[in-house]
Amino acid sequence: MRFSKLLIPTLKEAPKDAVLPSHIYLVRGGFIYQVASGIYDFLPLGKKVLDKVRAIIKEELDNVGCQEVQLGFVTPAELWKRSGRYEKYGSELLRFEDRKGNEFVLGPTHEEMMVELAKQFINSYKQLPMNLYQINLKFRDEARPRFGLMRGREFIMKDGYSFHADREDMVREFELMEATYRKIFTRMGLDFRVVEADSGAIGGEGSKEFMVLADSGEDTIVVCEGCDYAANIEAAKRKQPTAPAEAPEADLNRFHTPDVKTIEDLAKFFYVDPYYLVKTVAKKALYDEGKSEIVLFFLRGSDELQEVKAANSVGANELADVTEEELEAAGLVPGFMGPIELIRNAGVVEGAPPFHEERAHPNLTMVFDTGLEGAKNMICGANEKDYHIVGADLGVLKELKFADLAQTQEGDVCTKCGGRLTYTKGIEVGHIFQLGTRYSEPLKAEFLDQNGKSRPFVMGTYGIGVSRLLAAVIEQHHDEKGSIWPLSVAPFEVVVVVGNVKDDAQREAGEKIYKALKEKGIDVLLDDRAERFGFKMKDFELIGFPYAVVVGKKLSDGQVELIERTSLQKEVVALDHVVGKIAEKVK
Amino acid sequence: MRFSKLLIPTLKEAPKDAVLPSHIYLVRGGFIYQVASGIYDFLPLGKKVLDKVRAIIKEELDNVGCQEVQLGFVTPAELWKRSGRYEKYGSELLRFEDRKGNEFVLGPTHEEMMVELAKQFINSYKQLPMNLYQINLKFRDEARPRFGLMRGREFIMKDGYSFHADREDMVREFELMEATYRKIFTRMGLDFRVVEADSGAIGGEGSKEFMVLADSGEDTIVVCEGCDYAANIEAAKRKQPTAPAEAPEADLNRFHTPDVKTIEDLAKFFYVDPYYLVKTVAKKALYDEGKSEIVLFFLRGSDELQEVKAANSVGANELADVTEEELEAAGLVPGFMGPIELIRNAGVVEGAPPFHEERAHPNLTMVFDTGLEGAKNMICGANEKDYHIVGADLGVLKELKFADLAQTQEGDVCTKCGGRLTYTKGIEVGHIFQLGTRYSEPLKAEFLDQNGKSRPFVMGTYGIGVSRLLAAVIEQHHDEKGSIWPLSVAPFEVVVVVGNVKDDAQREAGEKIYKALKEKGIDVLLDDRAERFGFKMKDFELIGFPYAVVVGKKLSDGQVELIERTSLQKEVVALDHVVGKIAEKVK
Repeated sequence: MRFSKLLIPTLKEAPKDAVLPSHIYLVRGGFIYQVASGIYDFLPLGKKVLDKVRAIIKEELDNVGCQEVQLGFVTPAELWKRSGRYEKYGSELLRFEDRKGNEFVLGPTHEEMMVELAKQFINSYKQLPMNLYQINLKFRDEARPRFGLMRGREFIMKDGYSFHADREDMVREFELMEATYRKIFTRMGLDFRVVEADSGAIGGEGSKEFMVLADSGEDTIVVCEGCDYAANIEAAKRKQPTAPAEAPEADLNRFHTPDVKTIEDLAKFFYVDPYYLVKTVAKKALYDEGKSEIVLFFLRGSDELQEVKAANSVGANELADVTEEELEAAGLVPGFMGPIELIRNAGVVEGAPPFHEERAHPNLTMVFDTGLEGAKNMICGANEKDYHIVGADLGVLKELKFADLAQTQEGDVCTKCGGRLTYTKGIEVGHIFQLGTRYSEPLKAEFLDQNGKSRPFVMGTYGIGVSRLLAAVIEQHHDEKGSIWPLSVAPFEVVVVVGNVKDDAQREAGEKIYKALKEKGIDVLLDDRAERFGFKMKDFELIGFPYAVVVGKKLSDGQVELIERTSLQKEVVALDHVVGKIAEKVK
Repeated sequence: MRFSKLLIPTLKEAPKDAVLPSHIYLVRGGFIYQVASGIYDFLPLGKKVLDKVRAIIKEELDNVGCQEVQLGFVTPAELWKRSGRYEKYGSELLRFEDRKGNEFVLGPTHEEMMVELAKQFINSYKQLPMNLYQINLKFRDEARPRFGLMRGREFIMKDGYSFHADREDMVREFELMEATYRKIFTRMGLDFRVVEADSGAIGGEGSKEFMVLADSGEDTIVVCEGCDYAANIEAAKRKQPTAPAEAPEADLNRFHTPDVKTIEDLAKFFYVDPYYLVKTVAKKALYDEGKSEIVLFFLRGSDELQEVKAANSVGANELADVTEEELEAAGLVPGFMGPIELIRNAGVVEGAPPFHEERAHPNLTMVFDTGLEGAKNMICGANEKDYHIVGADLGVLKELKFADLAQTQEGDVCTKCGGRLTYTKGIEVGHIFQLGTRYSEPLKAEFLDQNGKSRPFVMGTYGIGVSRLLAAVIEQHHDEKGSIWPLSVAPFEVVVVVGNVKDDAQREAGEKIYKALKEKGIDVLLDDRAERFGFKMKDFELIGFPYAVVVGKKLSDGQVELIERTSLQKEVVALDHVVGKIAEKVK
């Protein structure tokens, strides 16, 4: 292909809202063009990279027996209602009506559609296992589309779904997919970690994310310095932190703590480590069909609430903030909240002063972090203005709901090896789920087993952010001049730059090299534009082709320059050797 | 690939609403699955054919310098408002709002988007010409989706758009696209005609359609028996039919014609050829922004109104029927309508009886078919109950609007060669348009010419119904047993059928042939299912792979059978020769 004929509109300026290198370079390099918030056109170079990414994914998936299909992008709302996600998905699900008033949604993911398909056509254990995937358009009406292809509304995703007779076979496929995804991302030249993840809106029994390591990543990953443990912070586990030396021993008592509302103030007031304080976090948990309730989460003062863990602990779709007015209306005292059941029980402890039992709300949902299990000598809010309880023993309380609510922190200890956990940032490019029967049961997708008995499919689901990969690759492969594409997904493998197109010898030599490379099956671009040499080299650096052959003044000595984009180092090569040299590097 | 592992759900029964062979066989052969009215999933075989069709299109287009892009499927309504099509497109355009209340449409075609792109990035004559295309999803909210992939709502289209400095270069590209499309459809084994067409909602200066000849086609094509002239009936031209021998001579007069309302009755009543009668057709013409008006179309009684021509003659988006009440409200007399201006003028002819001049509607839009130009001795409605005018001379009327309104009929005479015109049926699979500045002007998409002057792009646009092609191919290539895929787009080129998988020798020989064919790069399927032989052969016939190798009982004599799907003829081939034989046929 010839640069002069292609639409590669490189730009000097980045879009105003662009902060990430990938966003800046994809736009400046003429790969994409923003049509509307979170909606992009792929220009010829962008489309070409997309096709290469897609081809790698398809090849590896087909190799392990996955089958490509293409499902309707516009999907009937009915299916979503049956699975319960029409409500659960929230406002990211774009709903609309057709001319006849039938309800549809733009598919943000296709579990329902694929289950429907399986229900229709897979009815015997003999057909199992089956892994079907598509590489297709998706739409999620993000509240805040941003970062170019990183968080768009319309995007391309590979979504795969596997069907199995039992859990064991599903786990086997899950592991096969993990291995296959590793191959795919490795071929794209990515440095990534496979991390334990929260299952989110998809639901299911366990999931792993593929995180491309990059400072610009929106996800925080907890990694172990000692072993290969890695997890999204939303799912990261840790050993319970050990107690600081001295516990503040005190009899159970009500204590006047005027205006002492924060954990920090409380620690100072009592001269105790926050470890011995009960932190109370009130949130509004949002459920299906617009239902919501106030939930109190309790954890040690030294810990922070991890909201995804907290939402999962009560099966909520998400958590929202609660206003002071709402708390008061629920009989709670902001700044002085504490485990109400505790207060009630405390009231009957002999010798303790009387408490305001009428304030107790036994119907309020309360969840305790596992770190509080059996905690003694704790200080917590008395649910009365300017009062706290000291010397509380949570062990005496019955039937408390415990869950992992605390966010793992840097310096915490790995549950697998005892090593030190630290944070790193990642871009999620893949996510695999052990779904189990989360969809097959409500959607009644069943098969006949060997005994002729009807059973729901055990499912897995596997996603790759295809268009996002373009951004992820650049986040890891760029410098201050532009992108540096890995060979496997480069828009072209080599660009042959004719220094001065008015010089017949240079032009002809350029053409000759171009043709010779093409004949060798190398994906080559000829920069034959009537532009200044410096301008063309800037474009080479900005777009980021892996190699450039410069046909310039040295041609009179029978020489050209070979430049590697990674290092920008130049090598003078004899005209006759350059094609062979590139063929070696590229193959 | 192994049949036993693939999702190829062949069915005995066709869907109830399926009437076309392509619809029946695509569903029964396990290629597609209907999700909702006009929305289909492509199953593995359907996706595979789609990919082959797509690859042929891409290869031929790239060969002539077209560049593939991928535009947003969800497009901002703003662009459609600017081009004027937000209204004009009618209810096929699916409009919706995102969570923030911004208006969008699901792209049914992408002129606006592509012009926006060109406006942004093509600004100099030096960048011209440029031809950009995509092969992507489209959505049209059809009133009556039907016939499987033939008329869906969600479908895949190749849409290309070219940009030029002048008309001449646009015409050159238009011709190049015609030649390229011919190559594409020829490679797919289609028997097609390139016909002159109406430009429809896209607008522009001229267009051609690519029609696959098939009895089931929804389009009527007029073809010449003597030359290569072919046109969609909506645009077909003809020589004006010659007059029948005797014209009914009469002085201009008002004539009592009680209850004589139809052309047929009138011809009998006066003993004249319908050629000498004026047929009046009243229609409601629908314009942008909900505007409409009653229009009277006049043509010879021997002709039929061609509605698309009629709509074009007044620039309407479409024509609708008018009720008798509406006609009467407009002062017209159903059954006795005639050219009102004629009546008014006739009223002043000396000696003629008085007419009801107060009924005249000089503001009604009237269009005359060119066949009525200068027509004499005509009989037409008097616009008075039970009266007609005889001896009317249309030549005396001034400032009439003439246009080609009449539908070309079988037996009419070709304008190019004088040959006989006949009808045939076709499926539109491609449509190319000379757009001119229809979009670039309203959308202000301009470039600087050699003199530094701003000028709007001269454009062409080129479409292919990619998913519809699957149906079109089958309409032309099937028999009573199933599809017969041409090699170039077949889901697999060959199927190796193991007669009895429990027979070790047969199974092993099947595997061996399968592997040998794969090694030769042949796209082969192994039917290794534990099904009856007859069942497997029925699937071969239904799905329609071009060739089958049957490894059956003759294996003990070192022989297998080779079957061509087209003729279903069997040939006994030595085991050792079968791979070579197939390689010969396939390459």
